Amino acid sequence: MAEIITKLRTARLPVGFRAAGISSGIKENGAKDLGMVISDFPTASAATFTTNRIKAAPVRLSQRHLRHGDIRALIVNSGNANACNGKQGFNDAKLMTQFAASSLGLDPSQIFVCSTGIIGYPLPVEKVQIAAPKIVKKLRVSGWRDFSQSIMTSDKVNKVSSFKTLIGGKEITVTGAAKGSGMIAPNMATMLAFFVTDASISENDLREHTKRAVDDTFNCISVDGDMSTNDTVLVLANGAAKNRQPRKGSKDSNRFGEALRHVMLDLAKQLVRDGEGASKFIRVEVQGASSELDAKKVARAVAESSLVKCSWNGSDPNWGRVIDAVGYAGARVDENKVDIYFGPLPAAINGKVAPTPIGKLKAQVAKKEFTLRINLNIGKGSHRVFTSDLSEEYVAYNRLEYALKIQGR
Amino acid sequence: MAEIITKLRTARLPVGFRAAGISSGIKENGAKDLGMVISDFPTASAATFTTNRIKAAPVRLSQRHLRHGDIRALIVNSGNANACNGKQGFNDAKLMTQFAASSLGLDPSQIFVCSTGIIGYPLPVEKVQIAAPKIVKKLRVSGWRDFSQSIMTSDKVNKVSSFKTLIGGKEITVTGAAKGSGMIAPNMATMLAFFVTDASISENDLREHTKRAVDDTFNCISVDGDMSTNDTVLVLANGAAKNRQPRKGSKDSNRFGEALRHVMLDLAKQLVRDGEGASKFIRVEVQGASSELDAKKVARAVAESSLVKCSWNGSDPNWGRVIDAVGYAGARVDENKVDIYFGPLPAAINGKVAPTPIGKLKAQVAKKEFTLRINLNIGKGSHRVFTSDLSEEYVAYNRLEYALKIQGR
Repeated sequence: MAEIITKLRTARLPVGFRAAGISSGIKENGAKDLGMVISDFPTASAATFTTNRIKAAPVRLSQRHLRHGDIRALIVNSGNANACNGKQGFNDAKLMTQFAASSLGLDPSQIFVCSTGIIGYPLPVEKVQIAAPKIVKKLRVSGWRDFSQSIMTSDKVNKVSSFKTLIGGKEITVTGAAKGSGMIAPNMATMLAFFVTDASISENDLREHTKRAVDDTFNCISVDGDMSTNDTVLVLANGAAKNRQPRKGSKDSNRFGEALRHVMLDLAKQLVRDGEGASKFIRVEVQGASSELDAKKVARAVAESSLVKCSWNGSDPNWGRVIDAVGYAGARVDENKVDIYFGPLPAAINGKVAPTPIGKLKAQVAKKEFTLRINLNIGKGSHRVFTSDLSEEYVAYNRLEYALKIQGR
Repeated sequence: MAEIITKLRTARLPVGFRAAGISSGIKENGAKDLGMVISDFPTASAATFTTNRIKAAPVRLSQRHLRHGDIRALIVNSGNANACNGKQGFNDAKLMTQFAASSLGLDPSQIFVCSTGIIGYPLPVEKVQIAAPKIVKKLRVSGWRDFSQSIMTSDKVNKVSSFKTLIGGKEITVTGAAKGSGMIAPNMATMLAFFVTDASISENDLREHTKRAVDDTFNCISVDGDMSTNDTVLVLANGAAKNRQPRKGSKDSNRFGEALRHVMLDLAKQLVRDGEGASKFIRVEVQGASSELDAKKVARAVAESSLVKCSWNGSDPNWGRVIDAVGYAGARVDENKVDIYFGPLPAAINGKVAPTPIGKLKAQVAKKEFTLRINLNIGKGSHRVFTSDLSEEYVAYNRLEYALKIQGR
């Protein structure tokens, strides 16, 4: 079957890309904090950004460079978000692109720049100046793992994924890396995700596939409902696989979109699993809503309820808290039609307790992964969100100033 | 000064009211779980209810009785919310009013009924049937404390308050009791609050004052953002103080409204202080927003951000998390104009770090009570919310099924 989309056992860069990740000294503990990716060929690019009204300087600068087109390289630092630093912040973001550009022999407008870490502290940009020529020397075809480590903040593990498929008879690879674990919310919060592919695809097509895939993946995850100033998803396609560029709407184009979605979904799930203090992975499925929007409201209200998330942490099949969140979500609801399932087992049918033995429901919620399904039974709207539980560890971690100072947010 | 509104050292019932609180056996641990209040005279009544689309049976029944007018007594149980029990739930709520009415020699439509506790378990209404004649015998002028204890669920302390003032030369008293500590959110969540006054006041006036006072007090508190199926605020005025009924808009009428607001504000603050696992009381003040609505959005986003609440718990003056929440609140914001103060000290001015030494900011956040002030500096909209921090104790408590089973929610 030529049309199969396959996950690679080990993530690797597509043809024509090199990457690196090193320590520049921005993180005081000496961990990797500067990453770079370069394409040896011109690229088509697509990106989505935070919807937070307060946008970090690198977000604003990269939006400008993206409009200009012709992105060839990416520079990212972790440990400092370069957000809320006024004019100096914007100048520092510009300097980062200049340091990268001069070391790579490119124009600053060809550089995409991102930052993640603590908000409101000036970026020690001189450290990037010193490190830029060094990181350029470390760029390798095998550099994706180092790169993925260099973008981590409160992440416990680095997150990478590669899928391959055939487009016009040629094998193409889509590879991604992502960071983020706290402040993850629908509409992408404190999340950076970078994707590179050697597929040849038109920029228009790439942008459409990117938007659709982000909506179905990163915009459907929620850890704590907060949304950051720095969120960015970037996709670069350099055509090095030499496939014939697929026509818009063709099977080949759609297969490329599917491959991109696979990589994003894989990384979105990894982000939830690494949620700060998260011990469980929960899929909240809402069906039978009177509209998609209503389904989304209900899924988010349930996935973001502190009380519901605490009950999951305690393996408590507390459908009362779930139906309470359903009620305040702002969606059309008929209380006497709501069904709630933990895994395959009904906890409530028609808004009333179901006869399932409590022990069996508990066994579902005690699992490391389970699906909570809510059927409103009044329409056809549906939505699903991936989320985690709320643990004492989340609070213990986030009350500590230490986390901020060393790892940044 | 005749116009002074004074807090009584010990809360006591106004003239012409009696109350009681006993154990009926709904709570398995034998704690008080049934409360009753009666007025010896006809009353003017006002109430506000949950905005949750899923409303408990007693809420729906009491709404009906309120429209009918002529409320003379209140019956409340704790330990079971009588929510999500279908038709049986509505019948059980009716039975509660019938048991109360027959023991008191009233019509069931004169009874206001409330329930609070676990959702989705049938109410053991036979326990109310047995207890109703008993509680009627316990009704006392001195019964407010017992009553306030009988409505507790996860509350650590009972909450009461009395204020007095002069209306038309006569001393009148306004007395309240409230329960609730988790699931507290703007728009009143898992909260019951009952107010009785011997003032003579028209029903129209009473309803207007009640709405306004609730908006300024109970609708401005937030512990965890959840909203319950059972929230109710009831105010009964029996005119036993024999003051001349004030004209609408008169000084006397407004002084009555002020007294009612004082009692509600006192209890709203008590609710936040007793928030599950709360160790701090924070006043979030937003100023300079482009509208009241925008100010409200910002205050709520900040007060409900898990990350911000964790930082307060850790005494961390983390203004980066605050400005991040400001940004995603959905309000108009100019990043370069935002000022953030912890107590009197600026943490950020014009969206950038202020020169206040970090140690001084920490000392503010380390206090048991402090004000976080956010000035957007783009308009005249303002709003304030009372809230608490998020602690490991909150999670530890709410992950326990135990809490549900014994105390109910």
